[in-house]
Amino acid sequence: MSFTTVFVLFPNVTQLDFTGPLQVLHRMPGATTHIAAKTLDPVPSDCGLSLVPTTTFADCPQADLVCVPGGFGVSGAIADAETVAFVRAQGAKARYVTSVCTGAFVLGAAGLLQGKRATTHWAYRHLLPEVGAIREDARVVRDGGVVTGGGVTAGIDFAFTVLAEIAGPEIAQGIQLALEYNPAPPFDAGGPDRAPESLMNLVSGFWTDRTREFAGELAALKR
Amino acid sequence: MSFTTVFVLFPNVTQLDFTGPLQVLHRMPGATTHIAAKTLDPVPSDCGLSLVPTTTFADCPQADLVCVPGGFGVSGAIADAETVAFVRAQGAKARYVTSVCTGAFVLGAAGLLQGKRATTHWAYRHLLPEVGAIREDARVVRDGGVVTGGGVTAGIDFAFTVLAEIAGPEIAQGIQLALEYNPAPPFDAGGPDRAPESLMNLVSGFWTDRTREFAGELAALKR
Repeated sequence: MSFTTVFVLFPNVTQLDFTGPLQVLHRMPGATTHIAAKTLDPVPSDCGLSLVPTTTFADCPQADLVCVPGGFGVSGAIADAETVAFVRAQGAKARYVTSVCTGAFVLGAAGLLQGKRATTHWAYRHLLPEVGAIREDARVVRDGGVVTGGGVTAGIDFAFTVLAEIAGPEIAQGIQLALEYNPAPPFDAGGPDRAPESLMNLVSGFWTDRTREFAGELAALKR
Repeated sequence: MSFTTVFVLFPNVTQLDFTGPLQVLHRMPGATTHIAAKTLDPVPSDCGLSLVPTTTFADCPQADLVCVPGGFGVSGAIADAETVAFVRAQGAKARYVTSVCTGAFVLGAAGLLQGKRATTHWAYRHLLPEVGAIREDARVVRDGGVVTGGGVTAGIDFAFTVLAEIAGPEIAQGIQLALEYNPAPPFDAGGPDRAPESLMNLVSGFWTDRTREFAGELAALKR
Protein backbone atom coordinates (compact mmCIF):
# COMPACT_ATOMS: atom_id res chain seq x y z
CA MET A 1 0.00 0.00 0.00
CA SER A 2 1.20 3.47 -0.79
CA PHE A 3 -0.29 6.32 1.21
CA THR A 4 0.76 9.95 1.44
CA THR A 5 0.07 11.95 4.58
CA VAL A 6 0.60 15.70 4.63
CA PHE A 7 0.65 17.83 7.78
CA VAL A 8 0.34 21.60 7.42
CA LEU A 9 2.48 23.82 9.66
CA PHE A 10 2.16 27.54 10.41
CA PRO A 11 3.65 29.79 13.12
CA ASN A 12 2.31 29.39 16.65
CA VAL A 13 0.76 26.00 15.96
CA THR A 14 -0.13 24.06 19.11
CA GLN A 15 2.57 21.49 18.64
CA LEU A 16 0.76 18.52 20.23
CA ASP A 17 -2.16 18.99 17.78
CA PHE A 18 0.40 17.95 15.17
CA THR A 19 2.92 15.76 16.99
CA GLY A 20 0.24 13.45 18.49
CA PRO A 21 -1.26 12.37 15.14
CA LEU A 22 2.20 12.42 13.54
CA GLN A 23 3.43 9.81 16.03
CA VAL A 24 0.47 7.54 15.26
CA LEU A 25 0.18 7.98 11.49
CA HIS A 26 3.90 7.97 10.76
CA ARG A 27 4.07 4.31 11.76
CA MET A 28 1.45 3.25 9.21
CA PRO A 29 3.09 0.59 7.01
CA GLY A 30 3.75 1.94 3.52
CA ALA A 31 2.95 5.53 4.48
CA THR A 32 5.01 8.51 3.43
CA THR A 33 4.70 11.60 5.60
CA HIS A 34 5.33 15.17 4.52
CA ILE A 35 5.45 18.13 6.88
CA ALA A 36 4.69 21.17 4.77
CA ALA A 37 5.13 24.88 5.43
CA LYS A 38 5.58 28.05 3.41
CA THR A 39 9.37 27.70 3.51
CA LEU A 40 11.83 25.16 4.84
CA ASP A 41 12.66 27.41 7.80
CA PRO A 42 11.87 25.99 11.24
CA VAL A 43 8.32 26.90 12.28
CA PRO A 44 7.90 28.24 15.84
CA SER A 45 5.26 26.40 17.86
CA ASP A 46 3.42 27.52 20.98
CA CYS A 47 5.91 25.76 23.26
CA GLY A 48 9.24 27.41 22.49
CA LEU A 49 9.93 24.46 20.22
CA SER A 50 10.55 25.00 16.52
CA LEU A 51 9.60 22.27 14.08
CA VAL A 52 11.48 21.64 10.85
CA PRO A 53 9.28 21.14 7.76
CA THR A 54 10.25 18.45 5.27
CA THR A 55 8.82 20.28 2.26
CA THR A 56 7.28 23.56 1.13
CA PHE A 57 3.70 24.17 0.01
CA ALA A 58 5.07 24.64 -3.51
CA ASP A 59 6.93 21.33 -3.58
CA CYS A 60 4.59 19.14 -1.54
CA PRO A 61 3.14 16.07 -3.27
CA GLN A 62 -0.61 15.55 -3.31
CA ALA A 63 -1.88 14.01 -0.07
CA ASP A 64 -4.13 11.04 0.40
CA LEU A 65 -4.71 12.50 3.86
CA VAL A 66 -4.15 16.14 4.67
CA CYS A 67 -4.19 17.17 8.33
CA VAL A 68 -4.32 20.72 9.66
CA PRO A 69 -3.47 21.20 13.35
CA GLY A 70 -4.75 24.14 15.38
CA GLY A 71 -3.61 26.61 17.97
CA PHE A 72 -3.65 30.35 18.45
CA GLY A 73 -1.63 30.56 15.21
CA VAL A 74 -4.81 29.67 13.31
CA SER A 75 -5.66 33.38 13.43
CA GLY A 76 -2.66 33.98 11.18
CA ALA A 77 -3.20 30.88 9.06
CA ILE A 78 -6.78 31.73 8.04
CA ALA A 79 -5.68 35.23 7.08
CA ASP A 80 -2.79 33.94 4.97
CA ALA A 81 -3.82 33.44 1.34
CA GLU A 82 -0.95 31.07 0.57
CA THR A 83 -1.71 28.74 3.49
CA VAL A 84 -5.44 28.69 2.73
CA ALA A 85 -4.82 28.09 -0.98
CA PHE A 86 -2.51 25.16 -0.20
CA VAL A 87 -5.11 23.56 2.09
CA ARG A 88 -7.84 24.14 -0.51
CA ALA A 89 -5.80 22.56 -3.32
CA GLN A 90 -4.73 19.58 -1.22
CA GLY A 91 -8.23 19.15 0.17
CA ALA A 92 -9.81 19.10 -3.29
CA LYS A 93 -7.99 15.87 -4.21
CA ALA A 94 -7.29 14.19 -0.87
CA ARG A 95 -9.26 11.13 0.21
CA TYR A 96 -9.23 12.38 3.80
CA VAL A 97 -9.50 16.06 4.67
CA THR A 98 -8.75 16.35 8.36
CA SER A 99 -8.05 18.69 11.24
CA VAL A 100 -7.27 18.69 14.92
CA CYS A 101 -8.51 21.36 17.33
CA THR A 102 -8.99 24.79 15.75
CA GLY A 103 -7.32 23.55 12.58
CA ALA A 104 -10.97 22.98 11.56
CA PHE A 105 -11.23 26.71 10.88
CA VAL A 106 -8.39 26.54 8.37
CA LEU A 107 -10.35 23.82 6.54
CA GLY A 108 -13.37 26.09 6.87
CA ALA A 109 -11.52 29.13 5.49
CA ALA A 110 -10.58 26.94 2.52
CA GLY A 111 -14.25 26.15 1.94
CA LEU A 112 -13.84 22.49 2.83
CA LEU A 113 -16.41 22.31 5.65
CA GLN A 114 -19.48 23.59 3.73
CA GLY A 115 -22.44 21.52 4.97
CA LYS A 116 -20.15 19.07 6.79
CA ARG A 117 -20.58 17.85 10.33
CA ALA A 118 -17.44 18.73 12.27
CA THR A 119 -15.86 19.24 15.67
CA THR A 120 -13.07 21.42 17.06
CA HIS A 121 -11.71 22.53 20.45
CA TRP A 122 -14.66 22.64 22.90
CA ALA A 123 -14.39 26.39 23.44
CA TYR A 124 -14.68 27.13 19.70
CA ARG A 125 -17.44 24.73 18.62
CA HIS A 126 -20.15 27.38 18.54
CA LEU A 127 -18.16 29.13 15.80
CA LEU A 128 -18.19 26.17 13.38
CA PRO A 129 -21.33 27.45 11.57
CA GLU A 130 -19.35 30.62 10.73
CA VAL A 131 -17.37 28.53 8.23
CA GLY A 132 -20.42 26.63 6.98
CA ALA A 133 -19.99 23.53 9.16
CA ILE A 134 -22.58 21.72 11.24
CA ARG A 135 -21.42 21.67 14.85
CA GLU A 136 -21.12 18.30 16.48
CA ASP A 137 -20.11 17.91 20.12
CA ALA A 138 -17.80 14.95 19.85
CA ARG A 139 -14.13 14.07 20.15
CA VAL A 140 -13.84 12.74 16.60
CA VAL A 141 -16.38 13.43 13.84
CA ARG A 142 -16.50 11.91 10.39
CA ASP A 143 -18.61 13.18 7.52
CA GLY A 144 -17.60 11.42 4.32
CA GLY A 145 -13.91 12.09 3.78
CA VAL A 146 -13.88 14.94 6.29
CA VAL A 147 -12.61 13.83 9.70
CA THR A 148 -12.18 16.40 12.46
CA GLY A 149 -10.83 16.01 15.97
CA GLY A 150 -11.54 18.00 19.13
CA GLY A 151 -9.02 19.99 21.12
CA VAL A 152 -5.30 19.17 21.18
CA THR A 153 -5.10 15.65 22.69
CA ALA A 154 -8.16 14.59 20.69
CA GLY A 155 -5.70 14.40 17.79
CA ILE A 156 -4.41 11.10 19.13
CA ASP A 157 -7.88 9.55 19.18
CA PHE A 158 -8.56 11.06 15.76
CA ALA A 159 -5.38 9.48 14.40
CA PHE A 160 -6.17 5.99 15.68
CA THR A 161 -9.68 6.29 14.20
CA VAL A 162 -8.45 7.10 10.70
CA LEU A 163 -5.51 4.70 10.98
CA ALA A 164 -7.91 1.83 11.70
CA GLU A 165 -9.96 2.72 8.67
CA ILE A 166 -6.99 3.07 6.33
CA ALA A 167 -4.76 0.24 7.54
CA GLY A 168 -7.19 -1.95 9.51
CA PRO A 169 -7.86 -2.38 13.22
CA GLU A 170 -5.01 -4.84 13.74
CA ILE A 171 -2.37 -2.33 12.60
CA ALA A 172 -4.03 0.39 14.68
CA GLN A 173 -4.00 -1.81 17.76
CA GLY A 174 -0.36 -2.81 17.19
CA ILE A 175 0.63 0.87 17.07
CA GLN A 176 -1.54 1.62 20.12
CA LEU A 177 0.35 -1.11 21.98
CA ALA A 178 3.73 0.20 20.80
CA LEU A 179 2.79 3.71 21.98
CA GLU A 180 1.32 2.27 25.22
CA TYR A 181 -1.81 4.31 24.60
CA ASN A 182 -3.72 3.28 27.65
CA PRO A 183 -4.40 6.72 29.07
CA ALA A 184 -4.93 7.32 32.78
CA PRO A 185 -5.30 11.04 33.47
CA PRO A 186 -4.80 11.85 37.16
CA PHE A 187 -7.83 14.21 37.00
CA ASP A 188 -11.13 14.15 35.15
CA ALA A 189 -11.29 17.74 33.96
CA GLY A 190 -10.71 17.38 30.22
CA GLY A 191 -13.98 18.93 29.05
CA PRO A 192 -16.40 21.65 30.13
CA ASP A 193 -18.97 18.99 31.07
CA ARG A 194 -16.60 17.29 33.53
CA ALA A 195 -14.36 20.05 34.88
CA PRO A 196 -15.20 21.32 38.39
CA GLU A 197 -17.59 24.29 38.38
CA SER A 198 -15.02 26.38 40.27
CA LEU A 199 -12.52 25.79 37.46
CA MET A 200 -15.06 26.71 34.78
CA ASN A 201 -15.81 29.95 36.63
CA LEU A 202 -12.10 30.69 36.78
CA VAL A 203 -11.34 30.14 33.08
CA SER A 204 -14.57 31.01 31.28
CA GLY A 205 -13.64 34.68 30.97
CA PHE A 206 -10.42 33.81 29.19
CA TRP A 207 -12.16 31.55 26.70
CA THR A 208 -15.03 33.99 26.14
CA ASP A 209 -12.61 36.82 25.35
CA ARG A 210 -10.47 34.65 23.12
CA THR A 211 -13.34 33.17 21.11
CA ARG A 212 -15.00 36.59 20.72
CA GLU A 213 -11.78 37.92 19.24
CA PHE A 214 -11.55 34.88 16.97
CA ALA A 215 -15.18 35.33 15.88
CA GLY A 216 -14.18 38.78 14.67
CA GLU A 217 -11.29 37.31 12.71
CA LEU A 218 -13.62 34.79 11.09
CA ALA A 219 -16.11 37.55 10.21
CA ALA A 220 -13.28 39.51 8.58
CA LEU A 221 -12.75 36.63 6.14
CA LYS A 222 -16.19 37.16 4.67
CA ARG A 223 -15.69 40.82 3.94
CA MET B 1 7.14 31.06 41.28
CA SER B 2 10.20 30.46 39.17
CA PHE B 3 10.69 26.97 37.84
CA THR B 4 13.14 25.67 35.25
CA THR B 5 12.28 22.62 33.16
CA VAL B 6 14.91 20.99 30.97
CA PHE B 7 14.16 18.40 28.29
CA VAL B 8 17.05 16.36 26.91
CA LEU B 9 17.13 15.61 23.18
CA PHE B 10 19.19 13.06 21.23
CA PRO B 11 18.93 11.65 17.70
CA ASN B 12 16.06 9.23 17.00
CA VAL B 13 14.11 10.25 20.07
CA THR B 14 10.46 9.17 20.00
CA GLN B 15 9.12 12.65 19.55
CA LEU B 16 5.82 12.19 21.42
CA ASP B 17 7.74 11.07 24.54
CA PHE B 18 8.98 14.65 24.58
CA THR B 19 6.27 16.71 22.87
CA GLY B 20 3.47 15.34 25.10
CA PRO B 21 5.00 16.45 28.42
CA LEU B 22 6.34 19.63 26.77
CA GLN B 23 2.80 20.68 25.86
CA VAL B 24 1.61 20.17 29.44
CA LEU B 25 4.59 21.52 31.38
CA HIS B 26 5.29 24.50 29.13
CA ARG B 27 2.00 26.08 30.23
CA MET B 28 2.93 26.01 33.93
CA PRO B 29 2.72 29.62 35.16
CA GLY B 30 6.18 31.00 35.85
CA ALA B 31 7.98 28.10 34.22
CA THR B 32 10.93 28.46 31.88
CA THR B 33 11.53 25.59 29.51
CA HIS B 34 14.84 24.65 27.92
CA ILE B 35 15.24 22.04 25.21
CA ALA B 36 18.84 20.90 25.40
CA ALA B 37 20.99 18.92 22.97
CA LYS B 38 24.68 18.52 22.19
CA THR B 39 24.56 21.32 19.62
CA LEU B 40 21.93 23.77 18.36
CA ASP B 41 21.46 21.74 15.17
CA PRO B 42 17.98 20.30 14.63
CA VAL B 43 17.70 16.84 16.19
CA PRO B 44 16.12 14.15 14.00
CA SER B 45 13.24 12.32 15.71
CA ASP B 46 11.72 8.94 14.86
CA CYS B 47 8.98 10.54 12.75
CA GLY B 48 10.85 12.35 9.98
CA LEU B 49 10.43 15.49 12.07
CA SER B 50 13.47 17.39 13.30
CA LEU B 51 13.24 19.34 16.54
CA VAL B 52 15.19 22.53 17.18
CA PRO B 53 16.92 22.72 20.58
CA THR B 54 16.85 26.01 22.47
CA THR B 55 20.21 25.47 24.18
CA THR B 56 23.24 23.19 24.30
CA PHE B 57 24.28 20.89 27.11
CA ALA B 58 27.18 23.26 27.76
CA ASP B 59 24.99 26.38 28.05
CA CYS B 60 21.90 24.91 29.70
CA PRO B 61 20.90 26.34 33.09
CA GLN B 62 20.37 24.01 36.04
CA ALA B 63 16.94 22.38 35.97
CA ASP B 64 14.40 22.15 38.75
CA LEU B 65 12.94 19.33 36.68
CA VAL B 66 14.97 17.39 34.11
CA CYS B 67 13.08 15.08 31.76
CA VAL B 68 14.62 12.48 29.47
CA PRO B 69 12.38 11.08 26.73
CA GLY B 70 12.96 7.65 25.17
CA GLY B 71 12.89 5.91 21.84
CA PHE B 72 15.17 3.69 19.84
CA GLY B 73 17.73 6.52 19.99
CA VAL B 74 18.28 5.67 23.66
CA SER B 75 20.78 3.06 22.44
CA GLY B 76 22.94 5.90 21.19
CA ALA B 77 22.24 8.18 24.16
CA ILE B 78 23.38 5.70 26.81
CA ALA B 79 26.59 5.08 24.86
CA ASP B 80 27.32 8.78 24.51
CA ALA B 81 29.49 10.05 27.37
CA GLU B 82 28.53 13.70 26.86
CA THR B 83 24.78 13.01 27.01
CA VAL B 84 25.10 10.77 30.06
CA ALA B 85 27.34 13.31 31.84
CA PHE B 86 24.83 16.09 31.18
CA VAL B 87 21.95 14.04 32.60
CA ARG B 88 24.09 13.03 35.61
CA ALA B 89 25.07 16.64 36.36
CA GLN B 90 21.53 17.98 35.95
CA GLY B 91 20.08 15.07 37.91
CA ALA B 92 22.44 15.65 40.85
CA LYS B 93 20.91 19.06 41.57
CA ALA B 94 17.37 18.86 40.15
CA ARG B 95 14.36 18.59 42.45
CA TYR B 96 12.69 16.25 39.97
CA VAL B 97 14.64 13.69 37.95
CA THR B 98 12.25 12.29 35.37
CA SER B 99 11.89 10.19 32.27
CA VAL B 100 9.31 8.99 29.80
CA CYS B 101 9.42 5.56 28.15
CA THR B 102 12.94 4.15 27.71
CA GLY B 103 14.41 7.49 28.75
CA ALA B 104 14.54 5.71 32.13
CA PHE B 105 17.63 3.88 30.90
CA VAL B 106 19.43 7.17 30.27
CA LEU B 107 18.72 8.10 33.89
CA GLY B 108 19.95 4.61 34.78
CA ALA B 109 23.13 4.96 32.75
CA ALA B 110 23.76 8.19 34.65
CA GLY B 111 23.45 6.31 37.94
CA LEU B 112 20.25 8.12 38.92
CA LEU B 113 18.02 5.06 39.38
CA GLN B 114 20.12 3.14 41.94
CA GLY B 115 17.67 1.56 44.39
CA LYS B 116 14.76 3.60 42.99
CA ARG B 117 11.35 2.25 42.03
CA ALA B 118 10.75 3.07 38.38
CA THR B 119 8.76 2.29 35.25
CA THR B 120 9.45 2.43 31.51
CA HIS B 121 7.86 1.20 28.25
CA TRP B 122 6.08 -2.09 29.02
CA ALA B 123 8.35 -4.16 26.76
CA TYR B 124 11.50 -2.96 28.55
CA ARG B 125 10.45 -3.11 32.21
CA HIS B 126 12.24 -6.38 32.92
CA LEU B 127 15.51 -4.61 32.11
CA LEU B 128 15.16 -1.91 34.79
CA PRO B 129 17.19 -3.93 37.35
CA GLU B 130 20.12 -3.83 34.87
CA VAL B 131 20.50 -0.14 35.76
CA GLY B 132 19.91 -0.66 39.47
CA ALA B 133 16.21 0.23 39.52
CA ILE B 134 13.33 -1.63 41.14
CA ARG B 135 10.78 -2.49 38.46
CA GLU B 136 7.26 -1.28 39.00
CA ASP B 137 4.45 -2.09 36.57
CA ALA B 138 2.68 1.22 36.49
CA ARG B 139 2.03 4.12 34.14
CA VAL B 140 3.64 6.71 36.43
CA VAL B 141 5.96 5.87 39.33
CA ARG B 142 7.32 8.24 41.93
CA ASP B 143 10.16 7.46 44.32
CA GLY B 144 11.24 10.61 46.11
CA GLY B 145 12.26 13.10 43.44
CA VAL B 146 12.49 10.43 40.75
CA VAL B 147 9.35 10.29 38.61
CA THR B 148 9.23 7.92 35.66
CA GLY B 149 6.52 7.37 33.06
CA GLY B 150 5.66 4.33 30.98
CA GLY B 151 5.75 4.11 27.19
CA VAL B 152 5.30 7.15 24.92
CA THR B 153 1.77 8.43 25.66
CA ALA B 154 2.29 7.80 29.40
CA GLY B 155 4.36 10.99 29.24
CA ILE B 156 1.13 13.01 29.20
CA ASP B 157 -0.17 11.37 32.38
CA PHE B 158 3.30 11.72 33.92
CA ALA B 159 3.30 15.44 33.10
CA PHE B 160 -0.09 16.13 34.67
CA THR B 161 1.00 14.20 37.78
CA VAL B 162 4.12 16.30 38.34
CA LEU B 163 2.37 19.51 37.25
CA ALA B 164 -0.27 19.01 39.96
CA GLU B 165 2.42 18.54 42.54
CA ILE B 166 4.46 21.55 41.49
CA ALA B 167 1.71 24.03 40.63
CA GLY B 168 -1.32 22.54 42.38
CA PRO B 169 -4.30 20.53 41.14
CA GLU B 170 -6.27 23.59 40.00
CA ILE B 171 -3.57 24.66 37.53
CA ALA B 172 -3.21 21.06 36.34
CA GLN B 173 -6.94 20.78 35.76
CA GLY B 174 -7.05 24.13 33.95
CA ILE B 175 -4.36 22.94 31.56
CA GLN B 176 -6.09 19.58 31.17
CA LEU B 177 -9.25 21.46 30.15
CA ALA B 178 -7.32 23.70 27.74
CA LEU B 179 -5.75 20.62 26.13
CA GLU B 180 -9.12 18.81 26.17
CA TYR B 181 -7.42 15.81 27.74
CA ASN B 182 -10.40 13.58 28.01
CA PRO B 183 -9.01 10.60 26.13
CA ALA B 184 -11.25 8.16 24.30
CA PRO B 185 -9.13 5.60 22.43
CA PRO B 186 -11.16 3.77 19.78
CA PHE B 187 -9.55 0.47 20.88
CA ASP B 188 -8.43 -0.95 24.20
CA ALA B 189 -5.06 -2.38 23.23
CA GLY B 190 -2.63 -0.02 24.92
CA GLY B 191 -0.87 -2.58 27.12
CA PRO B 192 0.18 -6.22 26.97
CA ASP B 193 -2.48 -7.08 29.57
CA ARG B 194 -5.32 -5.67 27.44
CA ALA B 195 -4.23 -6.21 23.83
CA PRO B 196 -5.86 -9.14 22.01
CA GLU B 197 -3.88 -12.39 22.31
CA SER B 198 -3.65 -12.60 18.51
CA LEU B 199 -1.94 -9.20 18.47
CA MET B 200 0.49 -10.18 21.22
CA ASN B 201 1.40 -13.32 19.25
CA LEU B 202 2.00 -11.19 16.18
CA VAL B 203 4.27 -8.59 17.80
CA SER B 204 6.01 -10.46 20.62
CA GLY B 205 8.87 -11.61 18.37
CA PHE B 206 9.67 -8.03 17.42
CA TRP B 207 9.76 -6.85 21.03
CA THR B 208 11.74 -9.90 22.19
CA ASP B 209 14.40 -9.32 19.55
CA ARG B 210 14.56 -5.61 20.21
CA THR B 211 14.82 -5.89 23.99
CA ARG B 212 17.40 -8.69 23.75
CA GLU B 213 19.55 -6.41 21.60
CA PHE B 214 19.06 -3.57 24.07
CA ALA B 215 19.97 -5.84 26.99
CA GLY B 216 23.30 -6.40 25.26
CA GLU B 217 23.78 -2.65 24.93
CA LEU B 218 23.06 -2.18 28.65
CA ALA B 219 25.50 -4.97 29.54
CA ALA B 220 28.18 -3.26 27.45
CA LEU B 221 27.91 -0.19 29.71
CA LYS B 222 29.18 -2.19 32.66
CA ARG B 223 32.31 -3.47 30.91
